[in-house]
Amino acid sequence: MSRPAYRRPEYQKINKDLFVLTYGALVAQLCKDYEKDEDVNKYLDKMGYGIGTRLIEDFLARSCVRRCHSYSEVTDIIAQVAFKMYLGITPSVTCNNASRNEFSLILDKNPLVDFVEELPAGRSSLCYCNLLCGVIRGALEMVHLSADVSFLQDRLKGDKVTEIGITFLKKLDEKKYRRKK
Amino acid sequence: MSRPAYRRPEYQKINKDLFVLTYGALVAQLCKDYEKDEDVNKYLDKMGYGIGTRLIEDFLARSCVRRCHSYSEVTDIIAQVAFKMYLGITPSVTCNNASRNEFSLILDKNPLVDFVEELPAGRSSLCYCNLLCGVIRGALEMVHLSADVSFLQDRLKGDKVTEIGITFLKKLDEKKYRRKK
Repeated sequence: MSRPAYRRPEYQKINKDLFVLTYGALVAQLCKDYEKDEDVNKYLDKMGYGIGTRLIEDFLARSCVRRCHSYSEVTDIIAQVAFKMYLGITPSVTCNNASRNEFSLILDKNPLVDFVEELPAGRSSLCYCNLLCGVIRGALEMVHLSADVSFLQDRLKGDKVTEIGITFLKKLDEKKYRRKK
Repeated sequence: MSRPAYRRPEYQKINKDLFVLTYGALVAQLCKDYEKDEDVNKYLDKMGYGIGTRLIEDFLARSCVRRCHSYSEVTDIIAQVAFKMYLGITPSVTCNNASRNEFSLILDKNPLVDFVEELPAGRSSLCYCNLLCGVIRGALEMVHLSADVSFLQDRLKGDKVTEIGITFLKKLDEKKYRRKK
């Protein structure tokens, strides 16, 4: 007997350009509001955190991902499901240490900077896409995973790739996150 | 002999939720920055205008729409192609006057307010989605069509529908906009 086909809940798909330009307007506004790059970066992270905490519920419902039982699995889902869903790209993932709690997402292409040629004048320490770090941090927090998330490299700053580092801070409770059978 | 299939340029499709929440963060920031609702509305419109002037080129390339020879045709393209592409919805269009230069886009559903239950306290004159008016105005300006664009009704303000009014200000140069054969 064949199983009924499994269907994910539908979601509206849109072209990313209006989002990307609106994000640019948000960053420009924060640069007007805060003199120091560090403050803009902090504020973008804080805004992203709030967004992540709201996004996660819909993400879990729409992506239908199962509970993960390793940080590596969590990071793969961020890269392969979440980035694909919200930004239309799939970063590659590397694990950066032996205890397997430090990972990098390597973005060959970053759609959020599609309309950005360079950082604004006098803004060399700006992490233009820092909202993304906050989103990841906020979403992880809601599934009881504390993490530090920050840009390690950024093409806008002349680096060869854009790299987001994720360091998971607490050991997973293996019982809690064991895959349900 | 069969003609080669016509292909539109590809564009990345994404889930709208990250955009919708980021837009909410932008509006919240402007509400912090400007005390008067009118100033927030003006600023959203201005930001949208800038976005529209940048978006139009890609829109024309991706949508492959032909030149229009009536305001009615222009409005249909905004509703059926542009709104579908950037917000995943198709508003209905009504023409509001005999000289056929005033139109309304009626939005049964407005994804930009998906996460908004009501206007912020003390912000009863806020046009939450005013960025959209600016985007339409800016994009039209770039194809040499001057227009007034504003919200006529808004569900967030208790109206039954959300309605964007577009009034075209100059008579189309019929020769210029005659459909190419």
